[in-house]
Parts: sequence; C-alpha cells; structure tokens
Amino acid sequence: MVNAMTTVEFHFDFGSPNAYLSHLVIPEIAQRTGATFEYVPVLLGGVFKLTGNRSPGETLVGIRNKPEYERLEMDRFIRRYGITQFQRNPFFPVNTLTAMRGAIAASRLDCFTAYVDAVFHHMWAEPKKMDDPAVYRDALLRSGLDAEGILAMIQTSEVKQALLDSTERSVARGTFGSPTFFIGDEIWFGKDRLRDVEEALATTGHGHGR
Amino acid sequence: MVNAMTTVEFHFDFGSPNAYLSHLVIPEIAQRTGATFEYVPVLLGGVFKLTGNRSPGETLVGIRNKPEYERLEMDRFIRRYGITQFQRNPFFPVNTLTAMRGAIAASRLDCFTAYVDAVFHHMWAEPKKMDDPAVYRDALLRSGLDAEGILAMIQTSEVKQALLDSTERSVARGTFGSPTFFIGDEIWFGKDRLRDVEEALATTGHGHGR
Repeated sequence: MVNAMTTVEFHFDFGSPNAYLSHLVIPEIAQRTGATFEYVPVLLGGVFKLTGNRSPGETLVGIRNKPEYERLEMDRFIRRYGITQFQRNPFFPVNTLTAMRGAIAASRLDCFTAYVDAVFHHMWAEPKKMDDPAVYRDALLRSGLDAEGILAMIQTSEVKQALLDSTERSVARGTFGSPTFFIGDEIWFGKDRLRDVEEALATTGHGHGR
Repeated sequence: MVNAMTTVEFHFDFGSPNAYLSHLVIPEIAQRTGATFEYVPVLLGGVFKLTGNRSPGETLVGIRNKPEYERLEMDRFIRRYGITQFQRNPFFPVNTLTAMRGAIAASRLDCFTAYVDAVFHHMWAEPKKMDDPAVYRDALLRSGLDAEGILAMIQTSEVKQALLDSTERSVARGTFGSPTFFIGDEIWFGKDRLRDVEEALATTGHGHGR
C-alpha cells in the first residue's frame, strides 16, 4: 500500500560515485517496494565541514589494501545490479557547489528530475569537469535544460541559503557522508545499505513486499 | 555438497568486537551452507602497522554522527541475529598480543576451538582486561583450559613467529582489518559482509544452498 510512510529520503551530492550508483538502483527498488524516493540535495563539502568527517579519497591515501578493497566492493555492486553506465571521473574530486545549488534552482524551475538525471550523467556516465563553469553550462544545454535560467537562479541568495539549510538539517538528523537514506528517523549510510533499506520497507509493511 | 571448496577462512583478532559478533553468527551460516569456517589468528596491531590502517576507535574520534551510526549498525546486527551474549568491553582497546599468541599455542596443544570460544567470551560476553597477565591466566583457568601449558608455549619463538607469519600472509592477501573472510582468493571485510559470503557460498554451489 502506498502511503506517506513509504517515502525514503535520498540525501545526495553529485560528487559521490556511490550516490550515483544508488541513483541507478533506486528505480528498481521503488518498483519492487512501491516506495517513493525523495531526492534531497545536500552539499557533501558542507557535511564534512560540519561533522569533521573526510572523504574516502582523502582517508584511503597511503593505506595498503583498503583502497583496492573499496574498488572491489564497488565492482561487486556494479555487477550485482548489472550497471553499465558508470565511468570513474578523471577530474575527481569535482567541486559540486554550483551543481548542487543548481539542483535547488532546478526544483524551483520544475525541472528537478531531469536536472538530477543530467548532472549525474555528466559526472559519472560521460564524466566531465563539472566544476568548470563553461563545461557545466554546456552539459546542461546538451541535456536540453534551461541553462541560463538555472545559472541565473543559482546566483540568488535564496537558493544558496536553501542548500545550506538542507545540508544543516541533514547533519542535524545524523548525516556524515553521501549517500544517506532516511525512512522517518531511521538512517542508513552508503549504497551497500540499500538492501537494508529495501528490507525495512518490506518488513514494516511500508512497501508492496516482494 | 561439502568439498574442499567450501572452506571460508575467518581471519580474526580477539580485540575486534566485530570479529566476536561474526564468531557468534558463523555456526548458523556453516549449518545453512554446509561450509567449513577455518579460523586464522591474525594480529590486528600488526595488520595496522603493515598497512597504515587505523582502528575505528582512533579514526572516529571527534567526528560528528559517524560513531553514533556505527553503534546503530552494530545494534542492528545484534538484533538481526538475535545475539544476547555481547557486552562492550570497558577496557577497550585491549592489547591482544598475548591472547593471539595463545591462539597459536592452543592449536599446537589441540585445544584451539575451546580456547577461541573462551577468549572471545572473556573479551565480549563477560568482558575483562585480558591484557593483564593475571586476568588472562585466571580466565583460561576458569574456562578449564591448560593455562600453564598455553602460557609456557606462548613464550616460544616458534609461536611468536607463527603469529607474525600468519599476519604477514594475511596482509599479503589483502587484509587491512578484522574480521576478514576469504573463499579462495575472494576477500570480504567486516561482519556486515557475512551475508555476501553466504550468498557467494550459495550461488557458486559451494554450499548446500538454503
């Protein structure tokens, strides 16, 4: 039964490959469970500043075996879900401040879903240096989005503040990285917890079951 | 079908609560799959030295939200598997050099399984300061083990070297923490990967299936 309880919040930043991989898998989980996924833009750099956490890109440097293992687990996830549209971004890490503000702007301009699909695509399917303003603008145009409208709205203090607020609210609820999932107050971190999210949807009767 | 391929290596250190929780769950996985779990003592302090990795106890300090989340996931694991025999060790982190050498000694004295059960118990079910020699000796005696024989053998260079060798071999194969599981060359890290280990056993036909 679909009701208000079936909403899973997906707190994401485009800069996280694991958020992108989750984004690819979310539709099939939504279909199996009947749950709705609500996408919540959260600036990962802000999360790190607020929590003192750091990205794996930083913490794994110089550690033997662990980076190789993380890559192996990413490959396993890709294999498990039959993902074909993923390329590591050669410009990683990409500063996502503009792209994330753009997500807020796109929601104001009623093109949020298309924008999210497009930016994830240009980050991780046909990876580009999306923190280069010209590259970013061109990517939006290529995806048929209103680049000028989005770019104009990104400059507004309302949009800047909304991303800040969203990030602070997320951290206040327990976020320390991306992706993070919430069902009500229950929190899960990381793409590998999507199976637990799905189980939670099934066992609490929030979804259709299997 | 039970054959040589059904062996899962469990590389463990008594100091890891997640190794202990895995130890409690392993028997039911062995029963469901028909796989045999081979316990391999590995000194976690040595693993950290060789890889440059650090324990969560160190890396989580001062980070907002992440320690709380790790605790939540531990509680979820405990609930999922109906674990009742777990207490956080107030003396954590406990130096496990003697206890891990003891595991090698116990294998030479044909009391490996009883020793492993006992030491895990005294670390995480009725937690004690097991790096205190008197406490350690007393714990072994209370569990009906040949404390004197084990303590004598711990002093031998053969036992010391065997733990060192085991640790180095494990790291050479990809270990960076505890617990680590191997099926042949395939590696999984962490108690939360036990579901993947079980799946691997089932899908490759290594186990009985479900």
